[in-house]
Amino acid sequence: MKLSHRITHITGGGSDGWDVFYKARRMVADGVPVTELTIGEHDIRTSPAILEAMHTAATGGHTGYAMVPGTHDLRKTVAARIAARTGVPTTADNILITPGGQAALFAAHMAVCDPGDMAVYIDPYYATYPGTIRGAGAVPKAIITSPDTAFQPTSPALAEATKGATSLLVNTPNNPTGVVYSQDTLQAIADTCDAHDLWLISDEVYDTQVWEGRHISPRSLPGMAERTLVVGSMSKSHAMTGSRVGWICGPADTIAQIINLATHTTYGVPGFIQDAANFALHQGDAVEEDVAAPFRRRRALTMQALAGQNVVRAVPAQGAMYVMLDLRATWMSGEAFANALLDAEHIAVMPGESFGKAAAGHVRVAMTIADNQYVDAIGRLIAFASARAA
Amino acid sequence: MKLSHRITHITGGGSDGWDVFYKARRMVADGVPVTELTIGEHDIRTSPAILEAMHTAATGGHTGYAMVPGTHDLRKTVAARIAARTGVPTTADNILITPGGQAALFAAHMAVCDPGDMAVYIDPYYATYPGTIRGAGAVPKAIITSPDTAFQPTSPALAEATKGATSLLVNTPNNPTGVVYSQDTLQAIADTCDAHDLWLISDEVYDTQVWEGRHISPRSLPGMAERTLVVGSMSKSHAMTGSRVGWICGPADTIAQIINLATHTTYGVPGFIQDAANFALHQGDAVEEDVAAPFRRRRALTMQALAGQNVVRAVPAQGAMYVMLDLRATWMSGEAFANALLDAEHIAVMPGESFGKAAAGHVRVAMTIADNQYVDAIGRLIAFASARAA
Repeated sequence: MKLSHRITHITGGGSDGWDVFYKARRMVADGVPVTELTIGEHDIRTSPAILEAMHTAATGGHTGYAMVPGTHDLRKTVAARIAARTGVPTTADNILITPGGQAALFAAHMAVCDPGDMAVYIDPYYATYPGTIRGAGAVPKAIITSPDTAFQPTSPALAEATKGATSLLVNTPNNPTGVVYSQDTLQAIADTCDAHDLWLISDEVYDTQVWEGRHISPRSLPGMAERTLVVGSMSKSHAMTGSRVGWICGPADTIAQIINLATHTTYGVPGFIQDAANFALHQGDAVEEDVAAPFRRRRALTMQALAGQNVVRAVPAQGAMYVMLDLRATWMSGEAFANALLDAEHIAVMPGESFGKAAAGHVRVAMTIADNQYVDAIGRLIAFASARAA
Repeated sequence: MKLSHRITHITGGGSDGWDVFYKARRMVADGVPVTELTIGEHDIRTSPAILEAMHTAATGGHTGYAMVPGTHDLRKTVAARIAARTGVPTTADNILITPGGQAALFAAHMAVCDPGDMAVYIDPYYATYPGTIRGAGAVPKAIITSPDTAFQPTSPALAEATKGATSLLVNTPNNPTGVVYSQDTLQAIADTCDAHDLWLISDEVYDTQVWEGRHISPRSLPGMAERTLVVGSMSKSHAMTGSRVGWICGPADTIAQIINLATHTTYGVPGFIQDAANFALHQGDAVEEDVAAPFRRRRALTMQALAGQNVVRAVPAQGAMYVMLDLRATWMSGEAFANALLDAEHIAVMPGESFGKAAAGHVRVAMTIADNQYVDAIGRLIAFASARAA
């Protein structure tokens, strides 16, 4: 039986650099101890207090259909948090609660792109971006950035790539690079959106994980609130990856239309999960800093480990739970290096090539294991690279 | 800023018969006591035992990303349940766990329809059907059934409507009519799918609520397993509406492709909710019969109340949590009747017109309030109709 073109072509086909990830998983399944630095998931679980709040809501009877746009309480809380952090007036009408950040990314592209429209994204990119665009029927187009500009897109590249486009998807703090976009980069993005009348889809799920500089939401730049859809999530900020709760923030009339889409695609988010998220957000910034602290610590440990050698260089690690390591001094591709490291040292990292073309010769390290094991793994990675470069 | 055609046209526009529903909600908000017989939601909550299982899973650490296709345990359990009830060999590879039945309906249409493809459904229909089809970029086409055939589609109507179509969506036991499709109807559906090479999308979320006859899954008819996607859910069978957990069952190669779509649209379902669903399904049929029992009882009470008068006639109420009442003897439209009933008696029911064209002159009654209140409301509805018919 024939399936839709959309679904049979959602992934680009060919090797996508994830072979090393699956090889590591097979080794683990076969009983081989592997140090996995691959996936963006905390080494802590969702806090017991949040889970208690969820259970209290559920046993209190919040188990029926929730309002499709989200509970009024959670929408209000998310709006207030965004208003406080960005200075942009934001109310519950600007917020749709979604079953996770990925659902928000998909809904945002569904909302602004018609089939065949061009949707631009920045390479290196989070693995699902091009497939999300294709899933919405649009045509993905990448802006290939360069390690020389810390993987931030330049004005000429933005202008060139977005000619005739409908939307531009950006992600800061960035996965996989760990880079936080500068004010200049964000202004160039805003100028491009204005010049080409683009929707900006701004994935800000790592907004609580900033180690250097500060996170600027492009929605806060002049004129941008009317053309920006911000994607947010409780996953990274509150270690609630498995709860699948996120949001889209945008113009109220656009959100009203996306609510209509939600009625026909997801029909809301569990009320007890929304109550748990609302509870978590009311615990304040300190909780979010606690969740971010291990990555801040390990990022510092990474910088210490890298000091005093020149083979492995870090891309500026300013935010998110990853460091991107430049291994071009070894003359190996990221994929070849990751495979060799897995075979020799039983350490699994993601080849830069699994995030597009721009990060070839790099690997992404997720800082998601205990500090002492992490330091040991980074040390062995550096030693391994040094031996190969020699 | 321009939005996609898809999202701005997802609902058909114009009055959709839901005015009476919103009017009732406003009356309730204003403090007017209204007997609401509108929404398909149990008057019980999710059972404490299921919520305990959920909490145990969450506090036990199942709070990280779950596998996108669903947990292996839940996929296996759903597969075994379907195999046992239908006789069709079914394994975990035939199952994708989705965040609710609506997400399954949408994913099924996304999987089989390309933009512009014709997707057929049966009128009267569950409110989201045409919008779900439009959301997937396809063109909805209704088969208008008749009260004379108990709203079951006939062979000629099926053959005529599905010429050039890609998919056919059916729902038995049916919302809004409460009709359970006969073996003959299902065979006609299967023959049509075979003749026109159609995908069948079979919404079976009411499969545990059958009062007369028996539910036959069309996937179990000869040759149909390869062209059928069954939509199931824990919402109606286990009073877990707010947990948003359902599934698609279909050919393994098709499910593999839909998993790819899920990676880019929802990224899985909370693991602790899947564990709760798995627990619930392992409690056996008696639990499902307990959840269905109030509707079985109220359906019998409805038949008693209708006996001995001829103004209000029931469409054969064979399943689901609704009865569809034929009020054509009053010479009123369903919408006029529902509005008048709300004004005079403060009883809210859904006009047949809110479910399409076929059920004009009918109202749908959700049997979702306590027995004594329900009997009182039905009695007053009959008296009101009799007065209007006189």
